Amino acid sequence: MSERIFGEINGISIGTTFESRKDAAAAGVHKPLQAGISGSKDDGADSIVISGGYEDDSDSGDAIIYTGEGGQDEKGRQVEDQKLARGNLALAKSEIDGLPVRVIRGADKKNPFAPEVGYRYDGLYAVDSHWHEIGKSGFLVYRFKLVKLDSELPPNKLAKEIELISFPAGSDNPKRTIAMSQRIIRDSKLGKKIKKLYGYKCQVCSLEINTNAGPYAEAAHIKPVGKPHNGPDRPENLLCLCPNHHLMLDKGVYMIDDDLSLIGIEGKLTKHSDHDISIDHIRYHRLMFN
Amino acid sequence: MSERIFGEINGISIGTTFESRKDAAAAGVHKPLQAGISGSKDDGADSIVISGGYEDDSDSGDAIIYTGEGGQDEKGRQVEDQKLARGNLALAKSEIDGLPVRVIRGADKKNPFAPEVGYRYDGLYAVDSHWHEIGKSGFLVYRFKLVKLDSELPPNKLAKEIELISFPAGSDNPKRTIAMSQRIIRDSKLGKKIKKLYGYKCQVCSLEINTNAGPYAEAAHIKPVGKPHNGPDRPENLLCLCPNHHLMLDKGVYMIDDDLSLIGIEGKLTKHSDHDISIDHIRYHRLMFN
Repeated sequence: MSERIFGEINGISIGTTFESRKDAAAAGVHKPLQAGISGSKDDGADSIVISGGYEDDSDSGDAIIYTGEGGQDEKGRQVEDQKLARGNLALAKSEIDGLPVRVIRGADKKNPFAPEVGYRYDGLYAVDSHWHEIGKSGFLVYRFKLVKLDSELPPNKLAKEIELISFPAGSDNPKRTIAMSQRIIRDSKLGKKIKKLYGYKCQVCSLEINTNAGPYAEAAHIKPVGKPHNGPDRPENLLCLCPNHHLMLDKGVYMIDDDLSLIGIEGKLTKHSDHDISIDHIRYHRLMFN
Repeated sequence: MSERIFGEINGISIGTTFESRKDAAAAGVHKPLQAGISGSKDDGADSIVISGGYEDDSDSGDAIIYTGEGGQDEKGRQVEDQKLARGNLALAKSEIDGLPVRVIRGADKKNPFAPEVGYRYDGLYAVDSHWHEIGKSGFLVYRFKLVKLDSELPPNKLAKEIELISFPAGSDNPKRTIAMSQRIIRDSKLGKKIKKLYGYKCQVCSLEINTNAGPYAEAAHIKPVGKPHNGPDRPENLLCLCPNHHLMLDKGVYMIDDDLSLIGIEGKLTKHSDHDISIDHIRYHRLMFN
């Protein structure tokens, strides 16, 4: 079996339209011929097709509220509750692991963001969240919020949901304002490998966070990636951490000594025998804060 | 004393240029006449001026590596180590509290992003991180990475640092790829108030994370903000949480019962007598996951 491909498919640019599901499958953008969700609970979901089949779907282009699968009869009527299983669980796994999902829109006259004909590849989305609710049918449905990712155009979500702030001095009527900061959790194939190696347990505190889509951990870079540090996205620069110990590493609340004992907090880093941790990167991080 | 204003100043649009520091101060974009950093360790920093005074600064427009203040002689030579104090501590506080910083660029022939003359207001930036290093002078300097925020154009950081992914099936030479997910920590004035009320201690586990810029906590919304939930950014919808319990709330790992005991994990929410927590929002959150 060929490996499941997350992210862009070589040679298929955004906007490429396919005549049929079969053509889209042959190109590798969405392999199943029937199912709306491509994926498995262990890998996560790599692509979805939106084609107006669910009465509860909502599409605003850059953000999609996508209804999970299951519980419909052959006429597409919702006749029973959905479960967090199969495709739904795969989408939730992509959320938890931070994996990108290819979105393919099928022709749908009711959706202004859908193509006139055929199936169009519309780029990569992140699964922001999932929850369940009672759908229009009266049955329980799973819902997924997807937001557009784009290496050219950043997630428009950001443009829309950030309200920036002004408290004019002396104003009786300050504008409503939300300040924000953002933390980007990068998650690479290597990150997933490191997390699996540690069973998603934090290397500092051994905490395991169990969500309904599986365990959650973060792959943290010791030497920061991005300018000006330019730390590599390599196993020897990665740790499997809980969100608390990830933040504390990034903010210099603790550092790591050459023998992996911690400086600033009690404890010692757990290390798997298959995981080489770079002493150089640990020292770089120490010099940033110590 | 008038309140320190974070974010945009009413009536001053991006690109507004001032003839002098005095004019910029009078308009309220950057109040100090000499100091490059405006702020205090308790409030955070609300604005900075970049004017080429530090040999270690680096400006790429959307991202700025800004050198902290202190340790220079009257000719601007670095003659001693900087400290995480005064303006430097204020900038670090803005990082920890997620506050936006106004950036004003002064004329500087060596900087292609600086104006020809005067002082130009260039919009809001987030303080992404801070660290120290040995500068070109041989003395220790504090460094701050700022990234552009914009309600129109999302942080270009995102555009630049996200590499999206392709593992072409059967390819011998897969593209280097980073999948990503993002968590946006919104932090409002109300959020800061709630965090102060609880002394930055998590309402679930009482953890207090102490960084070198002060305590860190997250203001978490019970009913999610943003579509489709549209929870309000109001005290009765906010909790003061550590990153772990924030993530676990968002992912439905635990819910909150009407009596504030927790469902899914052991414990009970700490509640301050001045904090009304909305039962409606707690119930909305329960219905999402229970």
